[in-house]
Amino acid sequence: MGQNLALNIAEKGFPISVYNRTTSKVDETLHRAQNEGPFPLSGHYTPRDFVLSLQRPRSVIILVKAGSPVDQTIAALSEHMESGDCIIDGGNEWYENTERRIQEVSNRGILYLGMGVSGGEEGARNGPSLMPGGSFEAYNNIKDILEKVAAQVEDGPCVTYIGEGGAGNFVKMVHNGIEYGDMQLISEAYDVLKNVGGLSNEELGEIFGEWNRGELESFLIEITSDIFKVKDDLADGELVDKILDKTGMKGTGKWTVQQAAELSVAAPTIAASLDCRYLSGLKEERENAAEILKEAGLKEEVGAKRLIDDVRQALYASKICSYAQGMNLLRAKSIEKGWNLNLGEMARIWKGGCIIRAVFLDRIKQAYQRNPNLASLIVDPEFAKEMVQRQAAWRRVVGTAISAGISTPGMCASLAYFDTYRRARLPANLVQAQRDLFGAHTYERVDRPGAFHTEWTKLARNSNAAGVHALN
Amino acid sequence: MGQNLALNIAEKGFPISVYNRTTSKVDETLHRAQNEGPFPLSGHYTPRDFVLSLQRPRSVIILVKAGSPVDQTIAALSEHMESGDCIIDGGNEWYENTERRIQEVSNRGILYLGMGVSGGEEGARNGPSLMPGGSFEAYNNIKDILEKVAAQVEDGPCVTYIGEGGAGNFVKMVHNGIEYGDMQLISEAYDVLKNVGGLSNEELGEIFGEWNRGELESFLIEITSDIFKVKDDLADGELVDKILDKTGMKGTGKWTVQQAAELSVAAPTIAASLDCRYLSGLKEERENAAEILKEAGLKEEVGAKRLIDDVRQALYASKICSYAQGMNLLRAKSIEKGWNLNLGEMARIWKGGCIIRAVFLDRIKQAYQRNPNLASLIVDPEFAKEMVQRQAAWRRVVGTAISAGISTPGMCASLAYFDTYRRARLPANLVQAQRDLFGAHTYERVDRPGAFHTEWTKLARNSNAAGVHALN
Repeated sequence: MGQNLALNIAEKGFPISVYNRTTSKVDETLHRAQNEGPFPLSGHYTPRDFVLSLQRPRSVIILVKAGSPVDQTIAALSEHMESGDCIIDGGNEWYENTERRIQEVSNRGILYLGMGVSGGEEGARNGPSLMPGGSFEAYNNIKDILEKVAAQVEDGPCVTYIGEGGAGNFVKMVHNGIEYGDMQLISEAYDVLKNVGGLSNEELGEIFGEWNRGELESFLIEITSDIFKVKDDLADGELVDKILDKTGMKGTGKWTVQQAAELSVAAPTIAASLDCRYLSGLKEERENAAEILKEAGLKEEVGAKRLIDDVRQALYASKICSYAQGMNLLRAKSIEKGWNLNLGEMARIWKGGCIIRAVFLDRIKQAYQRNPNLASLIVDPEFAKEMVQRQAAWRRVVGTAISAGISTPGMCASLAYFDTYRRARLPANLVQAQRDLFGAHTYERVDRPGAFHTEWTKLARNSNAAGVHALN
Repeated sequence: MGQNLALNIAEKGFPISVYNRTTSKVDETLHRAQNEGPFPLSGHYTPRDFVLSLQRPRSVIILVKAGSPVDQTIAALSEHMESGDCIIDGGNEWYENTERRIQEVSNRGILYLGMGVSGGEEGARNGPSLMPGGSFEAYNNIKDILEKVAAQVEDGPCVTYIGEGGAGNFVKMVHNGIEYGDMQLISEAYDVLKNVGGLSNEELGEIFGEWNRGELESFLIEITSDIFKVKDDLADGELVDKILDKTGMKGTGKWTVQQAAELSVAAPTIAASLDCRYLSGLKEERENAAEILKEAGLKEEVGAKRLIDDVRQALYASKICSYAQGMNLLRAKSIEKGWNLNLGEMARIWKGGCIIRAVFLDRIKQAYQRNPNLASLIVDPEFAKEMVQRQAAWRRVVGTAISAGISTPGMCASLAYFDTYRRARLPANLVQAQRDLFGAHTYERVDRPGAFHTEWTKLARNSNAAGVHALN
């Protein structure tokens, strides 16, 4: 990724120096700069030579594994750096580590940015989505470069100054959480179409291709269509069927779920995606469970055409809920940290370059432009209208999947979220009564102010007892 | 709670000293000890007098708010304590705080226990479930007292030495997470019966009363039955309908969800319960959303009798999944920390005293006695049989609720968990293909060993290209 980002920068005409502890990597980058260019790129074999090759104020982008390798790299490089220079960490780092490092290097006058970079290898080379946070001065020093290097969409480059401290890392973390949600929901759409609808890989490839020309148009839908088309080189049939159903992960999804809990934000679709990755890892346990708990779902007869159209609508509505959760998590953190995140801008810089890039993000940008204080994407007039229109299909898909023993965890979580959020009255009154009964936690009433406690058991079991106390 | 626990200990014939910074609390306790006893209880008004009134080795139980009040109390008391004495924190403390304090007081030879106490005010007075972890020596010093003070069930007192370090707090935390799940599932059963089945509070009181004589027999079902019977003193009708649907919470549910994510354990039912508490708090947002997103669910005609029986089965099956998640979280932590938790014993000490006490816990104890290495409660032969029997009813309830726009988040989460766990093959193969396509994360195959990477896009778009690489 570092190599690709360096080539991208050099290709845009900005002279760049590269360094890696492994000298062959440096040579490889020089070779590619020659072959794909020639680009203004120079290679260096010691931290000192590398740093001294740069013009002041120096901007050094590091792309190493998150955690202690970042600290080690900072130690090796900063030794040769001077006041006013800047270190930019492009990894998926925990935002608090960035905030610690900002403090640490500031003792020597060194500036620091934690910059989320999304788009994988390909994005780094041809235009990623960039989420830099930390020193605004440092951002301004390399703003011109970042704006040229980032993916370009019709309303500008996919980069903006995110906010102070670890804001850039945090936004990238939530981006990844949303990405988990998108991938899970797509895999559930696949699951229903394949296992309820009985569709072939060829049909699936066509359907996803068609979906990519409508409201679901996005990188992930596009590549999903491609995946179904790839034949297996080593056996008959399509490769997708031969892939082991165990999903890896790298930590940002977990952090997103933990932060949502920390900030009292419900993010069930993202959590369901994480849980499914965990459960996918228990392959042997699942094989054993499948023996013990034989399939007992009822496969209803569903017309393929209607099912396909219903699944498309369910996927779209579920996706809106997932993005609503992610955006609300960003808002909660922004309030906690005073980051002043511009949620519309976040949606805008995700329109290109990154894994979740989609036409749909422009509509999110517009929703926040219409109302920067929008409580939830779900109640934006346009999204609300779309969700209401898709409700019936969404309920049919989830219901059909449940009957068939498939249970689409992400779509269920999104629908339950939607139904919980849109109900003025929830059964939480019972939970609060229980808490007051066993823990004297008190309750409020719907018809008058104050905190109340009731001697529930006494009253229930002795109709003559008096036991309600108004506490204030 | 401290007052009640002190009276409980004194009532069992163990002389006890009490101290509180607020002198009137000490007097109140003395007064109650006289009125409810007389019990061997003495009151003290300074930390020094209090500590010096105790026989060595001293065992001091503290019940204060978790966090810094515990540190302050330890500082005030330990000043007068000696080597071999023990401090026992009975609060809902974060387990790592207990581990830190064990270290801190050990410098002065003071022993320490972090002891989960469940059962609320009433349990503390008449027999709680106790979960002491930390110093085994300190546990042995007060074992006789704890065994007399704890709730008594047919197979012994509801207390056992949990394990080293913060094990007692951790087990109590998971107990509370499970309690969140139980309360959420019960509130969903109420929601469906009331809003789909159209049942009155009187009918609900009867149904929960009846359920309490069957497989669902438990404290929470019992008190729920009571709650529906309480009339409102301030207005017509039953009090439950007047309670504001906003649920409070105190942190242990949040920690459970965060720890599950940390340990790669799926705990979606517990997470759904937490999310519903968060969403219940957004009362104004929900009222606004209800205006915008009008009810669009279809109320199907469902016979009340069948619905009631279906809901009972759905509640039971959902509850098994929730407990499976909690037990697996305990197991994962036990492995990480080397606590050697005996899961069957955990179920046993929850059979009495605590909020989740239930007949059902004896069956969990038995499941772990049959197989201490049980991968999940779901695949225990007895629970597996029960779940298979209840599947059809469970799917009907969740499906009906979804159609009606209610969406029972906890039951949905449990069912999705069940359906995910019991499938030998999940659509995670597609997620893994996507990750390999955009991030070169590689994948495994179902039919041969090794890690593979494929040039998916190239192959999908150019059928002549070769792009599969076996990596090892």
